[in-house]
Amino acid sequence: MTLQETTMEDRLALLERRLASLEDEREIVQLLTTYGALADSGSSAELAAIWTEDGVYDNDVISMTGRDQIFAMVESAAHQGYIARGCAHFNGPVSVHVDGDTAVAVSHSLMVLHEDGAFRINRATANHWQLRRTEEGWRATARVGRILDGNELAPLLLRTGALGQLPPDPAS
Amino acid sequence: MTLQETTMEDRLALLERRLASLEDEREIVQLLTTYGALADSGSSAELAAIWTEDGVYDNDVISMTGRDQIFAMVESAAHQGYIARGCAHFNGPVSVHVDGDTAVAVSHSLMVLHEDGAFRINRATANHWQLRRTEEGWRATARVGRILDGNELAPLLLRTGALGQLPPDPAS
Amino acid sequence: MTLQETTMEDRLALLERRLASLEDEREIVQLLTTYGALADSGSSAELAAIWTEDGVYDNDVISMTGRDQIFAMVESAAHQGYIARGCAHFNGPVSVHVDGDTAVAVSHSLMVLHEDGAFRINRATANHWQLRRTEEGWRATARVGRILDGNELAPLLLRTGALGQLPPDPAS
Repeated sequence: MTLQETTMEDRLALLERRLASLEDEREIVQLLTTYGALADSGSSAELAAIWTEDGVYDNDVISMTGRDQIFAMVESAAHQGYIARGCAHFNGPVSVHVDGDTAVAVSHSLMVLHEDGAFRINRATANHWQLRRTEEGWRATARVGRILDGNELAPLLLRTGALGQLPPDPAS
Repeated sequence: MTLQETTMEDRLALLERRLASLEDEREIVQLLTTYGALADSGSSAELAAIWTEDGVYDNDVISMTGRDQIFAMVESAAHQGYIARGCAHFNGPVSVHVDGDTAVAVSHSLMVLHEDGAFRINRATANHWQLRRTEEGWRATARVGRILDGNELAPLLLRTGALGQLPPDPAS
Repeated sequence: MTLQETTMEDRLALLERRLASLEDEREIVQLLTTYGALADSGSSAELAAIWTEDGVYDNDVISMTGRDQIFAMVESAAHQGYIARGCAHFNGPVSVHVDGDTAVAVSHSLMVLHEDGAFRINRATANHWQLRRTEEGWRATARVGRILDGNELAPLLLRTGALGQLPPDPAS
């Protein structure tokens, strides 16, 4: 290699690393952003596949472990009733911290229900996501949510999520 | 070319393709993300320019074809009244699938109205977007929305949008 | 340099510029997206650090100048009361225009309060952000918000923000 080629090699390698970092974030943001559309369309298999096979989803109403339980939640009479009457799982934008092959993300979500001809916010939730790079791509290993009703864990989920840290013990 | 140059050529070409893919998504996300701000500021020309000249916008209340009709909706007494009394076209984050020179995106939106000194959700809507790369940049060829009030098309718009598919026939 | 190397040099330089542009936007979007999680977790120091040392935050209820005043707002009895009773500073996705070392962004936000066992939208706000590239990274120099209650400045903030322009005089 000439000196010129050596420099170009360094610049190429740096570009590749920087681009891979953007691609990781993009993939995670897009993965989590589909949650609401999959939930409100009853797309049980695709929604469950946001998680790893043994991923955890604790939304403060029920706690599920593994894709089968998440799939079953979407197929449940309760969830299907929401869809039939009208429901928006309205998720805010996701803030992501990637660290090698794991990542942490945080978001707010609103569950908006159509009832008696009107739309009301049924609950506002703080969500802390943990993710892992897998052979299938990035997948969630845990989503822990707490309703923002004064529950003391909810602010801790938001704080640790925003700072890219693991959630506090009671939630992990 | 030396062997070293050949390898660098391959790596450069791959970087260019990957970067172009990120740039496409970024442009589409930014295009659609301005919708709410343009709607609530009565920016009729700029809002209409999100679409192609013959773009379709069916929001479940009215169906418009072409920029002139979209422009006229923003200028209408009804829309201007929303702005005067206070209104937030609150759009959720967009999930995008790009396939060459076309793309599909999906998002939830809330129309929040200020009435009698309070803010209420007037409607929650499922939105399926189709886009095309044009000489002006990415533009929407169709946005089909259905209110999440139990309307059976709404979940289908969310599902097809989240999977990067065209919307179901009744909406296309 | 050979001709081949000259061409590669040009392509590398262009890739570096395009990637830097995406990285700027990504950093700004992620910076502003953490606002809600930091607000609802009472993370006063981290929230204040979204701004420059002398940054301005006018949210239509109070106007603050400098990180100390923003910190004090988060620590105030009023804000701590929101957290204790349950509150979601629910921010929509951010649309960003970067111009060299400054940037403009726009977003809607909802303040959702938990009161009497229900969640209600306390206010919907139009937000115009100005940012500057600093030694610490991108920081906000000004956030001006106006409640979307018919206030005539609110649409102007949305319009100028969506077009990447400075806010109108009364707000600057």
